[in-house]
Amino acid sequence: MTEISDTRFLRNIRLLIAYDGTDFSGWQRQNRNRTVQGTLETALEKLHKHSVSTAGSGRTDAGVHAAGQTAHFYTDIQNIQAERFVPALNGLLPQDLRILHAQESRYDFHARFDAKSRTYRYCLICGRRGLPQELRYGLQIWRRPRLDLLNAYARLLRGELDCSVFAVPGDPSKSRSRCFFGASFFMQGDTLVFEITANAFLWKMVRSIVGTLLYYEEKALPPIEFKYILSSGDRRLAGPTAPPQGLTLWKVRYYERFLQK
Amino acid sequence: MTEISDTRFLRNIRLLIAYDGTDFSGWQRQNRNRTVQGTLETALEKLHKHSVSTAGSGRTDAGVHAAGQTAHFYTDIQNIQAERFVPALNGLLPQDLRILHAQESRYDFHARFDAKSRTYRYCLICGRRGLPQELRYGLQIWRRPRLDLLNAYARLLRGELDCSVFAVPGDPSKSRSRCFFGASFFMQGDTLVFEITANAFLWKMVRSIVGTLLYYEEKALPPIEFKYILSSGDRRLAGPTAPPQGLTLWKVRYYERFLQK
Repeated sequence: MTEISDTRFLRNIRLLIAYDGTDFSGWQRQNRNRTVQGTLETALEKLHKHSVSTAGSGRTDAGVHAAGQTAHFYTDIQNIQAERFVPALNGLLPQDLRILHAQESRYDFHARFDAKSRTYRYCLICGRRGLPQELRYGLQIWRRPRLDLLNAYARLLRGELDCSVFAVPGDPSKSRSRCFFGASFFMQGDTLVFEITANAFLWKMVRSIVGTLLYYEEKALPPIEFKYILSSGDRRLAGPTAPPQGLTLWKVRYYERFLQK
Repeated sequence: MTEISDTRFLRNIRLLIAYDGTDFSGWQRQNRNRTVQGTLETALEKLHKHSVSTAGSGRTDAGVHAAGQTAHFYTDIQNIQAERFVPALNGLLPQDLRILHAQESRYDFHARFDAKSRTYRYCLICGRRGLPQELRYGLQIWRRPRLDLLNAYARLLRGELDCSVFAVPGDPSKSRSRCFFGASFFMQGDTLVFEITANAFLWKMVRSIVGTLLYYEEKALPPIEFKYILSSGDRRLAGPTAPPQGLTLWKVRYYERFLQK
């Protein structure tokens, strides 16, 4: 049961993964707690009869969901097509963790380092009592926020920005600068959805953004003043961090050249 | 801790209730298992300091969800408005059981006997791999059924019909005749939804209807022959019963006269 460390002769398999984060202590493997990575690696170990490491596009926190998490692993199983890993793994995994797709990737593809962008969605149930089926994946807020004002703030989250205002105290990232590709609020049925795409995010950053936008929308802060807050880099100006259950890692995009073998 | 049995001087409160049926052994109170009615009555007992009985519009099976179950109970609490029972009960209930609304009702209103109709929805995830978030509330089927053919069958579920073909063996109902107000399939996003409304349903009947319609659609049975199967009353002609997790009690309608006090 030793892990194979020389990856030169191994296949590199990319997985598209969805999970209901409610009963997981986040993505990253831990010794004691039930995590997504730990559960996935246990299934891979059963399949391989030796331990197999995975690398995800990023860590999601406890309670955060995923519709399009991506991970990769090296395998010495040669006799099956990549797509066959989907039913093989799903047969070993619990219902709240599903493999959606498996694909042969270039030997040097890395789910974290080769990601071009990450898209997250945050669901808000506004001004009405949510069903338990919705509260599992969304945050209930009792008022109906102004969509136009929220989107005026969201439009300011574009291009390269210093994100210190959204960083938790003691964030260990070398740089707090991130490149934003777009952020917007829209209605999906009667649920308000916030979608944001950036090259990468700091720890708890999306939840801090959601909490901060809602905080200033309630105060009806003019967008021009929100711009000042953004550029201040002052954490004390951030609103409360929104809880994890409303957040879903929606999609991870990669540079094309890494996807084909 | 004795229950008050003389209801003449008590208020009759109608509750609109939603639940995620996954972790409940159905609606009806049981001694050992966690049920919706049992959980609700425990909360009511805490509030009243004595036991309180509830009556629901009908029993939902283990694993079946509700977005609009209705129940009523008699209370000797006089000093609060009916609507205040919502936060009071939700504070005592688990997250997978929520009270959406509470309303003063006529002293003789009965959630089961005065219901005019029940509407159920069944969700189908067709021809694609569902997310865990969807599989909790829907059934995965691997093919894409013909919507027009399913709706041709569904249109036959109208008016007074003998439902013996959809009755489980040994169903104790006096009559197996039910009055249908409408049934149809429609797409909601990329989920196929079956909605059906009738005055009442036999035990497991909606799931038997869903399983039977899908069974004959796959065989491309002409609607005229499906009409024959419906009227045959022959249980052996029913398809497999669809599993509970796709089913949600959507709405219960009442005669207006019972709703106002």
